Amino acid sequence: MAAAEGTRKKVIIDTDPGIDDAMAIFVALRSPELEVLGLTTTFGNVHTALATRNALHLLEAVGRTDIPVAEGSHVTIKKASKLRIASFVHGSDGLGNQDFPAPATKPVDQTAAAFMVEQANLYPGQVTIVALGPLTNLALAIELDPLFPKKIGQIIILGGAYSVNGNVNPAAEANIFGDPDAADIVFTCGADILAVGLNVTHQVVLTDADREKLEQCDSKYARYLCKIMGIYFDYHKDAYFIKVNPSLLTYTEGVVRVQTVGITKGLTVFDNTKKRYGEITAWTGMPTVKVAVTVDAPAVVELMMQRLMTDD
Amino acid sequence: MAAAEGTRKKVIIDTDPGIDDAMAIFVALRSPELEVLGLTTTFGNVHTALATRNALHLLEAVGRTDIPVAEGSHVTIKKASKLRIASFVHGSDGLGNQDFPAPATKPVDQTAAAFMVEQANLYPGQVTIVALGPLTNLALAIELDPLFPKKIGQIIILGGAYSVNGNVNPAAEANIFGDPDAADIVFTCGADILAVGLNVTHQVVLTDADREKLEQCDSKYARYLCKIMGIYFDYHKDAYFIKVNPSLLTYTEGVVRVQTVGITKGLTVFDNTKKRYGEITAWTGMPTVKVAVTVDAPAVVELMMQRLMTDD
Repeated sequence: MAAAEGTRKKVIIDTDPGIDDAMAIFVALRSPELEVLGLTTTFGNVHTALATRNALHLLEAVGRTDIPVAEGSHVTIKKASKLRIASFVHGSDGLGNQDFPAPATKPVDQTAAAFMVEQANLYPGQVTIVALGPLTNLALAIELDPLFPKKIGQIIILGGAYSVNGNVNPAAEANIFGDPDAADIVFTCGADILAVGLNVTHQVVLTDADREKLEQCDSKYARYLCKIMGIYFDYHKDAYFIKVNPSLLTYTEGVVRVQTVGITKGLTVFDNTKKRYGEITAWTGMPTVKVAVTVDAPAVVELMMQRLMTDD
Repeated sequence: MAAAEGTRKKVIIDTDPGIDDAMAIFVALRSPELEVLGLTTTFGNVHTALATRNALHLLEAVGRTDIPVAEGSHVTIKKASKLRIASFVHGSDGLGNQDFPAPATKPVDQTAAAFMVEQANLYPGQVTIVALGPLTNLALAIELDPLFPKKIGQIIILGGAYSVNGNVNPAAEANIFGDPDAADIVFTCGADILAVGLNVTHQVVLTDADREKLEQCDSKYARYLCKIMGIYFDYHKDAYFIKVNPSLLTYTEGVVRVQTVGITKGLTVFDNTKKRYGEITAWTGMPTVKVAVTVDAPAVVELMMQRLMTDD
């Protein structure tokens, strides 16, 4: 980890691990450009209580218990009666049904939203939140501190489907569908936001050959991931990946609103703000966000493999 | 008009003229492959009463009063409290503010829906409905006769926006937005449906040069259209056009559902039915329709010009 403390980008990963999130967290921990300030937990791949347990467990598995975990909301921002949990993708424990022992460590005595607000106040304009699940904690942080959108450095959202079909249904992507009301609050809060949707993440694929390479190397990160990846590969061959290096992708800028009711609940509709409509719309005058358009997929896979195949 | 009576395709044009619809009706009347069984009227570019007046007037203007006009619904299928009328595009009379005299002819003593059902029964499997406005009359025809979807030959819908933004707002296209409940009924009724959306119609553009050619020729169709086209060209340079020749476009097939509430009301979401979702969705098991993907725009413009620049 060569980069000096001061030049590393401070990130909080809001996560629901989840096999894909485990991979993303490990890549982040192995990225010299990043200083992981903490993990905050949410529901989605698993329920929040299990996400917290898994986050603590993952940090223990690679000896990074110096990083705090703050537990997030157990319910959507409107306290919807039913959560959508994708245990059919990640196993019932969220980590490939490995039945890992309970972690020895505990989450900090602070909610995810309070932790986000605290860190944004400590390092104004310098903290990046990487949101890998539904956006409930971020919406709660905005409710907790209306100035949060101005204090936070950037919010990177792994969510939405822009001009392509969703993955929950033809309209909606899972992270947005998980809490559409929270998503609409976050997308329109005025913070510096970069959304990375299915149109981009589906371009980044870990192949069976990549998996074999991981299996043949001896880093603790690779060894751990290979144990849990089977069920995930069985479900699909696609791997989602958080973008930490903006030069690897291109983006466009415009307003994103989220449909919160009806059969397209969770749909993200992007407006480039160039077309003039005959009337005032729900997009008119709202803050713009960045939406990823293309990704250098081979470079991303290479970077990811590189970081997971060696120890420090 | 060379084609023999029996080989011509029987069409009913459901229309809200409207300058674009006037052009489409004239092209249809000048198409030897088509036998126009009648015009049915709806709201959209103008209110239905004015649409009926304009339909009668257009047929009188070119001496085709042999074609019946059946007046359609004045309200949406759920009797929404407010209609969206686009008089800012077409002038307050819908035909470029020309203040034409009242027509001498009258509509038939039958609703649009009843006329559609009657013709479908007269010529089972042979009638094509070309819907240029909101889909209220078609939904009413389906309510009137549940077997209508099986008896009608094809329904061609000028409506929706597939993987592109709408024109009412970033989500919705005007004809679907005009009556989203009716649109969802029609899209899922099981009839043979071809939807031609903004992604296709926006490729077909009448240029100023085309307009000049029309102005310099002496057909009654061209003379009439040049009178009314000014305001429409001023609003935008795009011309919508109904596809009557399927060889000029390509399409894909899948399920279309319409969002009927919320900020994306009127949104059409297409599912190619190839992707498997983790759960039953609102698209699962619904009838498929055809959605136009590409259009041979120069060929369409040429065909259109050719037909409008000569009399019989």
